[in-house]
Amino acid sequence: MDSHPGVELYKLGIGNTTEAIVPSVIEGLRKGVEKLSKRKTYTGYGDEQGDTRLRQAISKWYAERGADIDSSEVFVSDGAKSDCANITAIFSDDAAVAISDPGYPVHREASIISGKRVVSMECPEKNNFMPRMPKEKVDLLYICSPNNPTGTAATKKQLRSYVAYARKHKAIIIFDAAYSEYIGDPKLPRSIYEIKGAKSCAIEIQSLSKAAGFTGVRLGWTIVPQELQTEDSGEGMLNRFWNRRQTTMFNGASNIAQEGALAVLSAQGQRQTHKQVAYYMENARIIRDGLSAARMTIFGGVDAPYIWLKVPDGLSSWGFFDELLEKAHVITTPGVVFGENGEGYMRLSAFGHREDIERAVRSIRKNFGAIPIKRS
Amino acid sequence: MDSHPGVELYKLGIGNTTEAIVPSVIEGLRKGVEKLSKRKTYTGYGDEQGDTRLRQAISKWYAERGADIDSSEVFVSDGAKSDCANITAIFSDDAAVAISDPGYPVHREASIISGKRVVSMECPEKNNFMPRMPKEKVDLLYICSPNNPTGTAATKKQLRSYVAYARKHKAIIIFDAAYSEYIGDPKLPRSIYEIKGAKSCAIEIQSLSKAAGFTGVRLGWTIVPQELQTEDSGEGMLNRFWNRRQTTMFNGASNIAQEGALAVLSAQGQRQTHKQVAYYMENARIIRDGLSAARMTIFGGVDAPYIWLKVPDGLSSWGFFDELLEKAHVITTPGVVFGENGEGYMRLSAFGHREDIERAVRSIRKNFGAIPIKRS
Repeated sequence: MDSHPGVELYKLGIGNTTEAIVPSVIEGLRKGVEKLSKRKTYTGYGDEQGDTRLRQAISKWYAERGADIDSSEVFVSDGAKSDCANITAIFSDDAAVAISDPGYPVHREASIISGKRVVSMECPEKNNFMPRMPKEKVDLLYICSPNNPTGTAATKKQLRSYVAYARKHKAIIIFDAAYSEYIGDPKLPRSIYEIKGAKSCAIEIQSLSKAAGFTGVRLGWTIVPQELQTEDSGEGMLNRFWNRRQTTMFNGASNIAQEGALAVLSAQGQRQTHKQVAYYMENARIIRDGLSAARMTIFGGVDAPYIWLKVPDGLSSWGFFDELLEKAHVITTPGVVFGENGEGYMRLSAFGHREDIERAVRSIRKNFGAIPIKRS
Repeated sequence: MDSHPGVELYKLGIGNTTEAIVPSVIEGLRKGVEKLSKRKTYTGYGDEQGDTRLRQAISKWYAERGADIDSSEVFVSDGAKSDCANITAIFSDDAAVAISDPGYPVHREASIISGKRVVSMECPEKNNFMPRMPKEKVDLLYICSPNNPTGTAATKKQLRSYVAYARKHKAIIIFDAAYSEYIGDPKLPRSIYEIKGAKSCAIEIQSLSKAAGFTGVRLGWTIVPQELQTEDSGEGMLNRFWNRRQTTMFNGASNIAQEGALAVLSAQGQRQTHKQVAYYMENARIIRDGLSAARMTIFGGVDAPYIWLKVPDGLSSWGFFDELLEKAHVITTPGVVFGENGEGYMRLSAFGHREDIERAVRSIRKNFGAIPIKRS
C-alpha cells in the first residue's frame, strides 16, 4: 500500500491464531517449566515417540470419538507440518502421491522435495470442494478435512469413498486432521478412524496449533496403525519404519509443550479450548454474514475456520485480491496460491481478534455491499 | 540384573543431563509461557528460521568467539539431532559421506536412511581419537568436536587439516559442535569458524542440550554460511536449499524454548550455564581420578563430558561391560556400539548427580582398584 501511506489494513489472510492460550493450558505449560527448575523433577531426553502419559491420553481421546488407537500407534511430534512433510520418507521414492488442488502447499512441496510423482485431485464445487479421487492408481493420498483452504469438511460418505479407493488400490491415505476441532456438525467425522477399515489404509496427522493456539508452542501427533498395509509392506512395517525414522531423525517434542498438551487433553482443557474454537467460529459467522450481505458467493466457514469466496465474474484471484485491498483495505489470500484449481476463489481466515474481524467485514460491506452498514 | 535382584545399579552410561535448569534460564522459559497467556503478548507462528532476536543473539555469540556469522546464516531448530539428520536432504542422493568410527550413531544412520554411500573415518589413539581423513574423495564429512564418544577435542591444527581437505575436494564438513561448551583449554577451537576458510566449506550444528540442560526443552541451531560452495552449488545456494527445506518441512522451534535460549545467551545465562558445565566436568575429573587410581587406561574427559576407557587386554567391549556390571554394578556404554573401531573401549558419561558419580567410582575402585578406597 505504498500508494496509500498511513491507511490501516485489515487482515483476513493468515491462518494464524491470535488469542491467548487458555488458563488451564497455561497452567500445564507453567508446570512443565517448574519441573525443570528442580533437580528432583527435572527431565532430559524423553522417548522420541512422546511421553507415555501423553500417548495414553491421546489414545483415550480417540476412544472418546469411537476410534480404537493403541498408544504404540501414537507418535507425538513438534507439529503437523513436520509430520506431513517427513512422512514421505517411509514410502518409496517413485511412489505416486495425490494431493488436493487447491490444497495445503506443504503436501505438494514435500512430495516434490522427496522426489515423488505428484498427481492433482480437483476439489470442485459439486464435490463440496473436497478432492475427487484420481482416475489412475496412486500410492499415497493427502486428504485434509476440514479442508484448508476450501473451508469445507468431508462427510462420512466421502471419507468412506476415500477409504474404499485406498483399500482397492492398496494405497495409503495421509489424513491431515489439523482442523478437526472446528467441526460443529456432530454428524461429520472428526477422525478418519471413525470409518470402518481406515486403520488398514490411513495415517492420521493431528495438531494442537489451531485446536489450542499452539502454533508457536509446537505440538502435534501422527497415528501410524499397526495394521496398515500396502503391496510392499505387511502389518506393522510402516509403524516400525516411522518409529525408526523418528528415533533416528527426531528427538521428541519439547517436554514443556508435552505438559501443555496433557493439559489440553484434560476435561477442563477440552472445555476451555473448545470455547476458544467457538470464538474463532463466531468470527467465521461474522465474515460469512457480512459477505452474504454484500451479495458475495461464499462456501465453507461452518465446520472450518476458512471461508472460500467465489471471485466475481471476469476477475482473477489476484485481480480480486487487488480490488479488496484497494477498495476495502482488506488482505485476503488468492485461491490460486493453493493450486491452479484455486483460481477464481479467495481464502478468508477467521483467525483474528473480534474487533479486527468486524472492522474488516464492515469495510468490505461499506465498499462492496448493496446493503447499508449497521455500526455496532 | 535379574540375577541380583535388589542390587543398586550405578549409571555412567547415558549422555543425558540431570541437573535443574539454571535460574536465569528458567526465568526466560517462564517469560515465554507468560507471554502466551495474554492476548497482547501472545504470538503464534514465528519465522521457521527462528526469532530475529535469537538469530541476532547467536550471531553476536559467534562474534565473541571470533567468528563472523550473519544472522541470515543462522537457522534455529529443535535440536542438533534433527539437523544432523535432515541436513543430508540438501545434498545429492549419491553423495559419499564420511563418518567417524566410532561416532555418534545419528551421523551414520541418517546418511544410510537418506541413501548416501557411507565411508568410515578411523579415530585412532595416535590421532587423539579424532577422525583421520579418508583416502578417497568424499562429498560430506561429519566431524564432531569435542567428540562423542571418545571425549577428546580437535586442536586448531586438526581442524585446519579438515578444512584443507574439504577445500581441496570441494567437500562440505558438517561440524557437530554440540559439546563445545565443555572445552576447558582456551587454545582449543570451540567453533570451526575460528579456522580461516571454514566458511566456504563448513556447516556448524549447535545445541543447547548439553550446554544448558535443554535435552528435553529442545533447541539448537545450524549455521549455513552464504559463501559455502561445492562443485555443484555456487555461493548462497546451500543456504537457500536449507532455507527451503526448513520453511517447507519445519515450523520453527517452540517459542517458549526460544525465549529460554535468549536467556541462555544473555550474560547472566552464560555465567550460570558455564557453572553447570563446570559441575559436570568436576564429575568427569572424579571419574578420571577414580579410574586412574584403579590403574585403568583412560582418555578424554578433560574437554568433553565423556571418558574413553581402554578395555583391559583380552576382553571385548561387551565382555568388560559385563564385568563392570557384575562386579561393580556400574552401567557403561561399550565402545563398539559407536562403530566397529570402538571395539576395545568403553564410554563413561559424566552426566549425573555428584553423589551418584561418586558412588559409581567408589564401586569401581573397590572392585577393580589396587588402592584402598577413601570414604568421604
